[in-house]
Amino acid sequence: MSKVYKKVALIGLGLIASSMAKAMKRDGLASEIIGFAKSEETRAIALELEFVDRVESSAAEAVRDADLVVLCVPVGAMSAVAKEIGPVLKAGATLTDVGSVKRSIIELVSPHITEDIHFIPGHPLAGTENSGPRSGFADLFKNRWCILTPLANTDAAALDGLKNLWEGMGANVEEMDPDHHDLVLAVTSHAPHLIAYTMVGVADDLSRVTDNEVVNYSAAGFRDFTRIAASDPTMWRDVFLNNKEATLEILGRFTEELFDLQRAIRRGDGQQLFDYFSRTRAIRRGIIEAGQDTDVPNFGRGDGDGA
Amino acid sequence: MSKVYKKVALIGLGLIASSMAKAMKRDGLASEIIGFAKSEETRAIALELEFVDRVESSAAEAVRDADLVVLCVPVGAMSAVAKEIGPVLKAGATLTDVGSVKRSIIELVSPHITEDIHFIPGHPLAGTENSGPRSGFADLFKNRWCILTPLANTDAAALDGLKNLWEGMGANVEEMDPDHHDLVLAVTSHAPHLIAYTMVGVADDLSRVTDNEVVNYSAAGFRDFTRIAASDPTMWRDVFLNNKEATLEILGRFTEELFDLQRAIRRGDGQQLFDYFSRTRAIRRGIIEAGQDTDVPNFGRGDGDGA
Repeated sequence: MSKVYKKVALIGLGLIASSMAKAMKRDGLASEIIGFAKSEETRAIALELEFVDRVESSAAEAVRDADLVVLCVPVGAMSAVAKEIGPVLKAGATLTDVGSVKRSIIELVSPHITEDIHFIPGHPLAGTENSGPRSGFADLFKNRWCILTPLANTDAAALDGLKNLWEGMGANVEEMDPDHHDLVLAVTSHAPHLIAYTMVGVADDLSRVTDNEVVNYSAAGFRDFTRIAASDPTMWRDVFLNNKEATLEILGRFTEELFDLQRAIRRGDGQQLFDYFSRTRAIRRGIIEAGQDTDVPNFGRGDGDGA
Repeated sequence: MSKVYKKVALIGLGLIASSMAKAMKRDGLASEIIGFAKSEETRAIALELEFVDRVESSAAEAVRDADLVVLCVPVGAMSAVAKEIGPVLKAGATLTDVGSVKRSIIELVSPHITEDIHFIPGHPLAGTENSGPRSGFADLFKNRWCILTPLANTDAAALDGLKNLWEGMGANVEEMDPDHHDLVLAVTSHAPHLIAYTMVGVADDLSRVTDNEVVNYSAAGFRDFTRIAASDPTMWRDVFLNNKEATLEILGRFTEELFDLQRAIRRGDGQQLFDYFSRTRAIRRGIIEAGQDTDVPNFGRGDGDGA
């Protein structure tokens, strides 16, 4: 893979940015990587782990002369960062982001960007329950999807360059309309996260009553929820605030179905429950066949030794 | 570990029974293991895999002269099996089960059992999304909890014997009141399963509209739900029908909380969301410290290669 970008600036240095930096370095996809994070401690860690070549103490300094700028900050910080870097961006530079919502980010970022900048919103569907600069790894994007939501006037060459980068890091790239992206992600990610947070919250309330039995007996299903509900609180707050309508729409459908199944339980309608559970079993097979999960039981987490 | 039981009969030969048989054989915990399953195919597989010494074509034949009988059938089949084997059980034998609910099973089984039988209900909190006789493995119970819910008149020596067996198979044994068991499991298992089934059902409806995007983009959180929602439909139908009250109680609390968070999203109350998500993050740490899950990201499923 030939070098795609000479100078890359990563704004925000958490799980995604540190994984991108490691992947770009491993695969020779960038000549120089400059990092910025609001926290001095985070910048120091990035230097210590050497996934960036240098750090700057402001976003504006970091993006100076960069050919590619990647916004890896929570959605709630996008507008302020765009406002700061907008006037400094090099003409012809590509600007992208890795946020979990796309329509809001377009609205937050676009007003601050001049026409000579190629702004191409993006979203790699990859992550773990860990966050911060120490949690990144070069393989994070391997065989995962990265959705790009180019705008009407997006330059084809700039789009190709960004596609190449993501494919170089191992991802499959798909283009999508921003609003459609927000709906699909509400189903596959945003609603499930809110549901997991809620269930863990309910259990936490009860576990104070039941002397931590919830923790001890979590292997019966609950622990899978806790992994999702351990995700970064700031990021997820911003996701929900910025994908309100689609998330609330899916949660509405979810509650409707849940009430229907609750009624089946109350009435003792075993056939309805059995039919429903049989149908959902099939969808998992599809996910495994699509290469998006492992078919080893319990994800192969070596169940039994707990480590 | 000395041999605990001379003759063990396993009624039902799915994931739990086949795992028990393999663990007992590996650790020399039983001299002879006899199996029965309703399906002839399942019995043939049990013989082929050699985790039983022989099979019988009826439950009554299988339990004859057994020192320990383990009911590993769905809750809905417990009453019929108990009725069939009740008159044949050897005086002084221990009868246990591995069902996910305890109060119902006591009510379903007890009427068919004479006083000279030591009936000690049990529930190993272990399992995977796979089911059937080919899915068992000897390590399934290692470091997992097994809850026993002895009755008022349970014989101490019989209880000790059963405890020894479970500990011999690697489990931690805990005694609990049956109703309390049913409430704790409603929180850690039954409600989470119904919620996962529901969310996967909703996504399945939508995926028919969105051309399988739900499957492709499942890595963003959803795939964890699909694993839970791939569990055995018959078993789970019976769980919900037999732990109605506790499950509906927890689901009621869950919906209350979910509505509260939905309102926070609608109102744009970021602080409430942030505080809630920060609290739930802590509970995962407790589960990892209690040895009930791995702290490797994504359960160590080797994310990126999808296999």
